[in-house]
Amino acid sequence: MMKRQNAPLPDALSAIGQRTTPPPISWLMSEALKQPDLISLAAGFTDNQSLPVAATKELTRQILEHSQHGRQALQYGPGVGNERLHHHTRKILAELDGRLNFQDQTPYNNLLITHGSQQFLYLITEALCDPGDIIIVEDPTYFVYLSIMQSHGIEARTAPMEEDGASIERLEDTLERLTRNGEIKRLKFIYSVTYFQNPTGITTSLEKKRAVLSLLRRYEKSAGHRLYYVEDAAYRELNFPKYNAPPSSLTLDDYRDRIVYTGTYSKPFATGIRVGFGILPESLYTPVLNIKGNHDFGTAHFLQVILAAAIETKVYTKQLNKARKQYAKKCQAMVDALATHFPEEVHFSIPDGGLCLWATLPKYITTGPKSQYFRASLDAGVLYVPGAFAFADDPTRKKPNSTMRLSFGSASVSQIQEGIERLGKTLKSRLR
Amino acid sequence: MMKRQNAPLPDALSAIGQRTTPPPISWLMSEALKQPDLISLAAGFTDNQSLPVAATKELTRQILEHSQHGRQALQYGPGVGNERLHHHTRKILAELDGRLNFQDQTPYNNLLITHGSQQFLYLITEALCDPGDIIIVEDPTYFVYLSIMQSHGIEARTAPMEEDGASIERLEDTLERLTRNGEIKRLKFIYSVTYFQNPTGITTSLEKKRAVLSLLRRYEKSAGHRLYYVEDAAYRELNFPKYNAPPSSLTLDDYRDRIVYTGTYSKPFATGIRVGFGILPESLYTPVLNIKGNHDFGTAHFLQVILAAAIETKVYTKQLNKARKQYAKKCQAMVDALATHFPEEVHFSIPDGGLCLWATLPKYITTGPKSQYFRASLDAGVLYVPGAFAFADDPTRKKPNSTMRLSFGSASVSQIQEGIERLGKTLKSRLR
Repeated sequence: MMKRQNAPLPDALSAIGQRTTPPPISWLMSEALKQPDLISLAAGFTDNQSLPVAATKELTRQILEHSQHGRQALQYGPGVGNERLHHHTRKILAELDGRLNFQDQTPYNNLLITHGSQQFLYLITEALCDPGDIIIVEDPTYFVYLSIMQSHGIEARTAPMEEDGASIERLEDTLERLTRNGEIKRLKFIYSVTYFQNPTGITTSLEKKRAVLSLLRRYEKSAGHRLYYVEDAAYRELNFPKYNAPPSSLTLDDYRDRIVYTGTYSKPFATGIRVGFGILPESLYTPVLNIKGNHDFGTAHFLQVILAAAIETKVYTKQLNKARKQYAKKCQAMVDALATHFPEEVHFSIPDGGLCLWATLPKYITTGPKSQYFRASLDAGVLYVPGAFAFADDPTRKKPNSTMRLSFGSASVSQIQEGIERLGKTLKSRLR
Repeated sequence: MMKRQNAPLPDALSAIGQRTTPPPISWLMSEALKQPDLISLAAGFTDNQSLPVAATKELTRQILEHSQHGRQALQYGPGVGNERLHHHTRKILAELDGRLNFQDQTPYNNLLITHGSQQFLYLITEALCDPGDIIIVEDPTYFVYLSIMQSHGIEARTAPMEEDGASIERLEDTLERLTRNGEIKRLKFIYSVTYFQNPTGITTSLEKKRAVLSLLRRYEKSAGHRLYYVEDAAYRELNFPKYNAPPSSLTLDDYRDRIVYTGTYSKPFATGIRVGFGILPESLYTPVLNIKGNHDFGTAHFLQVILAAAIETKVYTKQLNKARKQYAKKCQAMVDALATHFPEEVHFSIPDGGLCLWATLPKYITTGPKSQYFRASLDAGVLYVPGAFAFADDPTRKKPNSTMRLSFGSASVSQIQEGIERLGKTLKSRLR
């Protein structure tokens, strides 16, 4: 027998280092790379053709033409973010919320500019949650946020989505159950993607936002601390033309000190310019700002100055209008193709904006990454996001497994038509 | 007696949310803002006058001139970072390390582009450290890193700086003590700022890097896991002309799987373009990459494309050479002023690069933020960084309190001369 060698020493990963798994999207992307002519209805990318290349060239020229302004753009900015971008962000939000009297900035104070709304979500989660804490998420929800929760050892509870947002009744059930079994002390907030939700495309009504906040308030005494409503409005400005999206929770003045709101400029303008923002209750502003300081001192100033200039010169609005038309057209192409090529048994959402819609198949057809249908779709050259990725690990309910997220953000109209036709064929051959 | 009102509900901050304090630098900056004509020898800003404004204008024009390249720049890039910037980074590191045969990329594999080296430091700390863990830092060290440690509940142990890096003897003492009292199982790594260290200006020799790695290896068995050497080379490319800096630890092939290395493009090129990078041992690459994915999916692609183009067109090298001359001139002005205006009792470092130097006053003159000398300096219109900020809370030694960090990065030559003269006067009136 050979003498046993010393075993190699283990890594010294932290709990976070051990828990953090690759996001499902990276697995999907590696699948996509194996087949270069694949039609991807999976990627969360935005439309490549309509990116504001010429406009950004002109903006950077203007910014860097004068040496003094140029130097400011290329130097560190304030940790909270560029002052002009703060001003414009407040103004845009006031307009979206239908607040004519912009003089009252109160709802839009405590603003922090971040490297995308994703970074803001990370910061607020770090600031509020310890391992073992609980967050209530929508069922289904934005799956990258589930990765953040999982990496921090946070447990999920859920409330299913209805046509105008999460079910208030089921949310109340969840809160009741948490109270009865004493877990409510570990609850920190409800996370809601309120406009053209990723993945369902559903928009939450203002009434539902108010109902959620009112419900949370009732349970604060049992929790022993404040319960927050985290409104993720990442897709808000991507409404299709003619659709007027409802106001944000920031208009609900009675609840302002329980609302955390996040939005982004990346998706509407250019994903390569990663700038998002968050708005916080007074008492959370300093803690989150301090954590951001440790992350990176503040968001890249040059990107913020470009966006501020884009807004001032109306380039931003023009780009938005172009994107809205483009996504409306692509969404319509997808909806038409689904109506033509998918069997009647399939239900799908018809969103008023955003980048994706949601299809529910008959229960006997599963869509998971190891399912026959997923493999057959890949063989047919089409990639979708299995709906299961968007359902949290909530031990109190069984995870649905017959849904899919279909993105119309990056694919062209003809790719969408061809992709849905192929998915439909693959599906029909499996119908009972 | 009045009826007692319900106390307002507390926030539900996490341990990190509660622990994270504002970095000392924000307090200094708010002091600075109260006095607009203050001469700041405190800020870690780079030289504003030499920022590459015209060059960046030309680079963005070239990038955005062709719609296809322009679109790539404005779209998401890969999570690990832009491929061209990866290539250039490896090449630059190989050149700095004197490796003529760049074909062997092994030491520079497992590269990750981040929003500044600061973000990389945050990621590696998250990936390796739990609350209660221990990191050995140099005494003194980069004070913002102390904020990251403190926010994660990490304890510090120290090894004092000597002329060529941390004292190996004292480091061994520290490791011995940790072993004896059983704390070594909580030790994760040694953090070292190796080139023109912030705050002392000291450069660590290659011999010392090797000695540290060899020492760490000896203690791994007691620790029960790998012990890493985290080399922070943020200032590496800011050497003054004619000074040849020693190679990095990445040249020590025997230790490659214990080395974490970070560098940045922000300080040499433009702080408003926040791009840094990190290199990891194979086994840590995926965990850190996954955490980065949760933070922000990847570093803003437009910034990376600008830097890649700057390197390809030699704009980056030109900018570096300009910055090196500029900082050498300003450092010399500070050294001359110190020699002229400071009493002999003061010792100060003469760095070969970087943005700051370090002065040690007689022990009876304290320099802390509440000291008479600090207040008198402010009254004289000059701000410095109290040295105490750069000393970790190490319970095993008393914190020195008579040192100061003096930055020559952002102040002009005449501000430096005037500032040092005033500091010298204030000091002389206090000599015994």
